[in-house]
Amino acid sequence: QETKTPKFGKGIFNLVGKDSTWTMKVGARVQFLASSMWEDGASNETSFLIRRSRLKFDGFAFTPKLKYKIELGLSNRDISGTSKYTGNTPRIIMDAVMKYNFAKNLYFWFGQTKLPGNRERVISSANMQMVDRSILNARFNIDRDIGIQLRHNFNISNNFVVREIFSISQGEGRNVTTGNEGGLQYTGRVELLPFGNFTSNGDYFGSDLKREPTPKLAIGVTYNHNNNAVRVRGNQGSYMETDYGLYETNINDVFVDAIFKYRGFSFMGEYADRDAKNPFATNSDGTKTGAIVQVGKGINLQSGYLFKNNWEVSGRYSSVKLDQDITGKVPENQYTLGVSKFIVGHKLKVQTDVSVIDINPANDIIMWRLQFDIHF
Amino acid sequence: QETKTPKFGKGIFNLVGKDSTWTMKVGARVQFLASSMWEDGASNETSFLIRRSRLKFDGFAFTPKLKYKIELGLSNRDISGTSKYTGNTPRIIMDAVMKYNFAKNLYFWFGQTKLPGNRERVISSANMQMVDRSILNARFNIDRDIGIQLRHNFNISNNFVVREIFSISQGEGRNVTTGNEGGLQYTGRVELLPFGNFTSNGDYFGSDLKREPTPKLAIGVTYNHNNNAVRVRGNQGSYMETDYGLYETNINDVFVDAIFKYRGFSFMGEYADRDAKNPFATNSDGTKTGAIVQVGKGINLQSGYLFKNNWEVSGRYSSVKLDQDITGKVPENQYTLGVSKFIVGHKLKVQTDVSVIDINPANDIIMWRLQFDIHF
Amino acid sequence: QETKTPKFGKGIFNLVGKDSTWTMKVGARVQFLASSMWEDGASNETSFLIRRSRLKFDGFAFTPKLKYKIELGLSNRDISGTSKYTGNTPRIIMDAVMKYNFAKNLYFWFGQTKLPGNRERVISSANMQMVDRSILNARFNIDRDIGIQLRHNFNISNNFVVREIFSISQGEGRNVTTGNEGGLQYTGRVELLPFGNFTSNGDYFGSDLKREPTPKLAIGVTYNHNNNAVRVRGNQGSYMETDYGLYETNINDVFVDAIFKYRGFSFMGEYADRDAKNPFATNSDGTKTGAIVQVGKGINLQSGYLFKNNWEVSGRYSSVKLDQDITGKVPENQYTLGVSKFIVGHKLKVQTDVSVIDINPANDIIMWRLQFDIHF
Repeated sequence: QETKTPKFGKGIFNLVGKDSTWTMKVGARVQFLASSMWEDGASNETSFLIRRSRLKFDGFAFTPKLKYKIELGLSNRDISGTSKYTGNTPRIIMDAVMKYNFAKNLYFWFGQTKLPGNRERVISSANMQMVDRSILNARFNIDRDIGIQLRHNFNISNNFVVREIFSISQGEGRNVTTGNEGGLQYTGRVELLPFGNFTSNGDYFGSDLKREPTPKLAIGVTYNHNNNAVRVRGNQGSYMETDYGLYETNINDVFVDAIFKYRGFSFMGEYADRDAKNPFATNSDGTKTGAIVQVGKGINLQSGYLFKNNWEVSGRYSSVKLDQDITGKVPENQYTLGVSKFIVGHKLKVQTDVSVIDINPANDIIMWRLQFDIHF
Repeated sequence: QETKTPKFGKGIFNLVGKDSTWTMKVGARVQFLASSMWEDGASNETSFLIRRSRLKFDGFAFTPKLKYKIELGLSNRDISGTSKYTGNTPRIIMDAVMKYNFAKNLYFWFGQTKLPGNRERVISSANMQMVDRSILNARFNIDRDIGIQLRHNFNISNNFVVREIFSISQGEGRNVTTGNEGGLQYTGRVELLPFGNFTSNGDYFGSDLKREPTPKLAIGVTYNHNNNAVRVRGNQGSYMETDYGLYETNINDVFVDAIFKYRGFSFMGEYADRDAKNPFATNSDGTKTGAIVQVGKGINLQSGYLFKNNWEVSGRYSSVKLDQDITGKVPENQYTLGVSKFIVGHKLKVQTDVSVIDINPANDIIMWRLQFDIHF
Repeated sequence: QETKTPKFGKGIFNLVGKDSTWTMKVGARVQFLASSMWEDGASNETSFLIRRSRLKFDGFAFTPKLKYKIELGLSNRDISGTSKYTGNTPRIIMDAVMKYNFAKNLYFWFGQTKLPGNRERVISSANMQMVDRSILNARFNIDRDIGIQLRHNFNISNNFVVREIFSISQGEGRNVTTGNEGGLQYTGRVELLPFGNFTSNGDYFGSDLKREPTPKLAIGVTYNHNNNAVRVRGNQGSYMETDYGLYETNINDVFVDAIFKYRGFSFMGEYADRDAKNPFATNSDGTKTGAIVQVGKGINLQSGYLFKNNWEVSGRYSSVKLDQDITGKVPENQYTLGVSKFIVGHKLKVQTDVSVIDINPANDIIMWRLQFDIHF
């Protein structure tokens, strides 16, 4: 009557097809968010949100060398961002990607998935240290796109692991149906793990839930070139429409990031920098359209310590400095203090954080958030 | 090769996680509707619709004290109602709610689900006595919202059951992504079951399919206060936009309802009343925007008798009287005669009804509907 | 721990409900497309797309005589086509249809599914011989609609099979929520299989994957009458809006098609013809709105040979001649050469084709496409 199934947090199904011709893990998750904002001179506002709700399918097909991952978004926040470039239709598919291990350490990916950008972005929203990602990520991340990736890894010494990723993608972000606007996007990333791989891929989840017995460090550097980009944040942000079509300019991003974990302590740092050839979108007569590439820099530093009882205290400092002369945007700093209780790791957890949002010269805003995560 | 599965109508899967760490029932359902309208002086019009199509997941997670329910809508009628307040994106998530039994008879709910409003609304659309709900429900129900609920129940005597529900929610209905417009919504409900609980929670499904051997009665009273509501029917209806933002006024609803079942006979009655502090939305200069809170009253009375062969004949009288001086809307009455064949209870059924729609002073309209339900 | 499951390509689940009260096969598929266009005087453009992504549920419910099929679209291309007639909401439901075998060879279908139109359209997009369907199909197919179908089949001789289908549907295509605009659509189709049924229903998948040991032929003729149609291609294309509502005119389509398979060789041919009573939509004062019914003719001929190693080479000639005096559209011809590698039949395949697009008097366009299909 009852199907045998995984333990809580290990998927709804862990299917193995007949004759081991395929596998599929089916997962689901929901994030419930309550938040409240206080600002001098304004009344407090409290709101509730189904922040994320996802279905995930992954495994191999026909041969263990051919893996796939499909992730669907269901919450209104997950699927919003409709435009004429996405068929005026919600963006349900987050990931739809094939991963073919065609030679020893070489993997060829094709389809739609996250680009090898900043670490904070590539860490799943299911596995974050704090309630949500930082403002650096909000302004600079290169998100998902459709195209191909080539991935390789090797060991320099017994322990020292190097990973290289190279990606070519359409350059306008996920779920575009109108073909390739502007040019392609080229992304390269190198990762160095001098003390070896983290336990259970811990360089790609928040908090040191595995309490690494020896220090582990990963350093990543990404260079991203969006050739003839048409959106104000490369493959993200609004489209730079003009009287003759879409404005195109080259946009380059650099990310440097690191993550360190040891005995419950964790640290993650990121630096981001975006520049553009001609950041001001112009009409055919040379007048500015008002769309401006969001060039600038950002930094994010966060750290936490996981107590034996699976409570964690964490802190974050984030700073974004868009080029004020170009974008007209003033610098923004955020200071965040977070507390998390991991009931079943990242699969069942309650996280709360309080942030001071300091945007010069406005009054500071205090933001409190409380999030409950459940991941089957 | 084949997975053991429930009987028809009991879910697609009834999963129990390893070590009983979680459970999940997966259900699916579709309603196929054909309808036809006749009006004097107009040609008859026949139409077809996939009325509802849902996926449902519920069970417990980690501990039997922590239950969840997720319901997704898939048909275009289910997910429509897109606005800028929902990210211009369809509203796929119907329910996403956690239910925590933190003390003996006390339950704390958080997330998005139905508010404790009128009984007709809280009865699942899968389990209705007739093809669809009444016009009282259409004009007055308080639907779903996101927030928290506290639920308690106790027995006065051996048999006499009392349930109390208190809810605080955002107040603009389901799937809103723009935060809390206006103020919060507060809903309280008390239910009295003087002759004890119905068989299989029969106070919350239509028709006396369990043929209660002794008379069963439930009476419910709901009081709902939507503080600084911004929509014309509280958390439903169009947004009251003005030249300075959203118009806000307090809206109050009262519902009184009862359901009675005995040996195949069933009766359900409801009364609804809505009033508002200042029903006319105004711009900053005091001129009316045209948006008006839909204040007024409604009554719905319906009854049916289920024959031994699982055919049911039912009748309904519904009357809605919006305050004509304020809303400009004339009274509306509907008289409906229904016939249902429950092949596998509410899981596989054919329902038909014919209604006379009497909207003064227009001609009467005759509406015939035929619906087929299948629920795995 | 692990659920027993089908082989790769045979579904994710093949459920049989307790006491054989129902069955359900759950399938999923994704198509990854890369394409490139070359035109004289324009720069080459390469793009990537998740072309289709579907979930499919089918089986029987309660009795083997009552079958159902539900197919959901997930990719942005699948679900686009939103309009006020579909609730401004994406069209996730592709099929939702019940099939009741109420007498020996008689089947009554109700719900939303493909109409019995041209063969190329009724062949699932999962099972196409080439990367995508032809331009004949793009301009003339009658797609899906909601309504009822009556299906019957009988044998003239031992081998000679005849199938008849008659359909009545709403006439505006799938997922319409605004009721029946214009009149109903009536479709009749007869199929003749003089040498008997194809192996595994091979008349409804592309390429002779079953390598028919004896010649098999199917001929189909469809006549379609869309009474008071309101869209420029009958139940497809843009709505013909006027100053008084929707313009209505009768639209008729004829399709003649054939498919032949023998020892790896396959041929499919189709002819389509659309005419309309008054193709020019007019406002109340008789002025033309600009909307014009797309009347005209088309032909599609395609053929392929499947080698022993499951590589196939195929060719296609398609020609569409809309009535130029009426529609102002010039004739269009396409010549396509395709190569497919069927790794696991249509379940895991790589297909590529190159087309010359010849639209008089413009320059020829060369289009190259590469598609990867995975179907669980």
